[in-house]
Amino acid sequence: MTISIDDVRNAARILEGAVEVTPCTPSRTLSQLAGAELWIKFENLQYTGSFKDRGAYVKLHGLGASERSAGVVAVSAGNHAQGVAYAAQRLGIPATIALPVGTPFVKVKRTEDFGAHVVLKGSTLAESSAHAHEIADQAGLAFIHPYDDAQVIAGQGTVALEMLEAAPDLDVLVVPVGGGGLIAGMTVAAKGINPEIEVIGAEATLYPFMRQKLFGGSGAPQGQTIAESIAVRDVGGVTSAVIQGQVSDILLVSEDDMEHAICLYLGIEKTLAEGAGAAGLAAVMTNPDRFRGRKVGLVLSGGNIDPRLLASVVMRDMVREGRIARLRVEIPDLPGALGRVCNIIGDLGGNIIEVSHQRVFSTGPAKEAELVLAVETRDRKHLQVILEGVGAEYSSVELLDPKT
Amino acid sequence: MTISIDDVRNAARILEGAVEVTPCTPSRTLSQLAGAELWIKFENLQYTGSFKDRGAYVKLHGLGASERSAGVVAVSAGNHAQGVAYAAQRLGIPATIALPVGTPFVKVKRTEDFGAHVVLKGSTLAESSAHAHEIADQAGLAFIHPYDDAQVIAGQGTVALEMLEAAPDLDVLVVPVGGGGLIAGMTVAAKGINPEIEVIGAEATLYPFMRQKLFGGSGAPQGQTIAESIAVRDVGGVTSAVIQGQVSDILLVSEDDMEHAICLYLGIEKTLAEGAGAAGLAAVMTNPDRFRGRKVGLVLSGGNIDPRLLASVVMRDMVREGRIARLRVEIPDLPGALGRVCNIIGDLGGNIIEVSHQRVFSTGPAKEAELVLAVETRDRKHLQVILEGVGAEYSSVELLDPKT
Repeated sequence: MTISIDDVRNAARILEGAVEVTPCTPSRTLSQLAGAELWIKFENLQYTGSFKDRGAYVKLHGLGASERSAGVVAVSAGNHAQGVAYAAQRLGIPATIALPVGTPFVKVKRTEDFGAHVVLKGSTLAESSAHAHEIADQAGLAFIHPYDDAQVIAGQGTVALEMLEAAPDLDVLVVPVGGGGLIAGMTVAAKGINPEIEVIGAEATLYPFMRQKLFGGSGAPQGQTIAESIAVRDVGGVTSAVIQGQVSDILLVSEDDMEHAICLYLGIEKTLAEGAGAAGLAAVMTNPDRFRGRKVGLVLSGGNIDPRLLASVVMRDMVREGRIARLRVEIPDLPGALGRVCNIIGDLGGNIIEVSHQRVFSTGPAKEAELVLAVETRDRKHLQVILEGVGAEYSSVELLDPKT
Repeated sequence: MTISIDDVRNAARILEGAVEVTPCTPSRTLSQLAGAELWIKFENLQYTGSFKDRGAYVKLHGLGASERSAGVVAVSAGNHAQGVAYAAQRLGIPATIALPVGTPFVKVKRTEDFGAHVVLKGSTLAESSAHAHEIADQAGLAFIHPYDDAQVIAGQGTVALEMLEAAPDLDVLVVPVGGGGLIAGMTVAAKGINPEIEVIGAEATLYPFMRQKLFGGSGAPQGQTIAESIAVRDVGGVTSAVIQGQVSDILLVSEDDMEHAICLYLGIEKTLAEGAGAAGLAAVMTNPDRFRGRKVGLVLSGGNIDPRLLASVVMRDMVREGRIARLRVEIPDLPGALGRVCNIIGDLGGNIIEVSHQRVFSTGPAKEAELVLAVETRDRKHLQVILEGVGAEYSSVELLDPKT
């Protein structure tokens, strides 16, 4: 199976008016931080919040009349489900989407709102997938693969066409990699326009399977990643064949680095990235030598992140930056003692946001109580001032969080 | 003092290439929710994160040679400080910015990074302001007022020119109101282009001073608002004179409504609004009859929100939507009891995110313990299922949060 830039250009014609031509703009502040000229493609601004709208529409558009009237089946815990349901609705194709039991109601509802029939079955994505294949086989429906499909790949490749239209002299593209559909399509398109352009993938350290397939290595930890959209065990056979020898590297990014990149996008660009969407920025920020002085195109591939997870990422980043810290201090178990410590911190401008207080598990004398305070500070230097201020009166004070 | 659309057009010429022409696009999903056609002007994407870049640049650009070389002074806890510092840097004008002691380090640093001289003095904005006026008087420097200034007003008015360029047939503009600079400039511009257009302000219920000045009423609660950028006691004399008789209403929006609007922008538009920036959307969502079927232009005026505040807003919204709730239940103080309750909730798909457990303050028998669990659910219906599930075994279970 070969995919050419003509396939991608054809996909672009199909997508005209059907998906957003999302903004692709330089970020001055992120560029300063990275020491490179960063251009960002905001695919989080697609209607369903990710680039998946592209490939799904191209694929469904290409179905024959009988396939269209029979309908399609897809499985996904997230973005692909919505991409397929949205495309199916507009093309008048019945769609069945298999989701694992326990999928957040919001996602179920969004998929149903597009008119798709949602089947909640299986406790994992693999189980739902098996069920979806069964449905497809029994009812003779087309199964819409999320990445290992020439038309899906061509559709995702249109992202690169638009980026090189906005910034024709990009030196390198950095693309999140899960199953490989996005990077495969973009590589075909970008190399077709400019054979000298470099394409680099960004993959979660917990799911380094495309890197291993292309460049060797083994031993993947897997587990819970913030980048569930690229947490793919079975990378594509088609996608990996397309990019083999074309993509110069796949960089691995840690959970911490993706979390921090989400916060950079939010604080600086005022835009919401999901974990996978922030993988490209994370790769650039953690490999500065590789990108210094170059003109880099990043794909912010999606913005569908659970709100509670987002809140937690934001708070954890404050801890990482030393703006929230936990102090442990032993105080006499007497009236006025807690107020005294709190006053020292308050007078120094620290904002106490959590207090815990206990007596039984303390290693100190029975007449002392152990106090743990979460304190918001202006920065690390301010935290140091507060530590010293408390320490002047209570020598037992210590910083609890190992990260600060 | 009169300000005409020619002043705003002149300001637009000065701003060409100096500030962003931010996107102004329709939101399909928010429009569906509101029952109106909503267009959003993304002023949070200005370089310093708010529309203040406009007025500050126009004002500083208009200074004479001697004023320019002497330098300027401004006071602000936030957006105006950065707007002035950024403009001053590019025009080569020395800038002194007075900030209250305790201003977050990030804001101090950002202002200093623009080359401004930051003076931390006074514990409130009023005290800093008095100090800034002193500096201005003593050193003969120009004081840059944040809103009550014809050139600042003309600069902010360019937002309306761009909105009516993007969507010439808007029926109504909804504009956040603090001191009144933005709404005054936008009213002049919009009415100059289309005398039939309606302009409506959105003000925080805690700071309803422009509404009271224009339409009467008294008794403002003030206090801590999430919309600190529009928490203005002394609304402008110039700005209020400009909009008197032109603005048809000032709608008041509650803290809850602004918090929810921040979450709508984040979840649906993947964009970060500060409290004041979300006031317009809050006004539309809470007054549906007023806007139904109309073409409404909203100004998302800024995106500079403290990360910890954002995290808290996001979590509080989940509570408001019934997706996080607290259950109180009395269990026997025996081995296995906690695990039993947790298993019931887990088997029903609820995710326990906090546990507290106490014995001393309980009203029940001494051999029972009181358990409070914060549980994440898929939605209110799911919460009800969990409540019934726990209740089948523990009849004492009750929902603690009054909001759910």
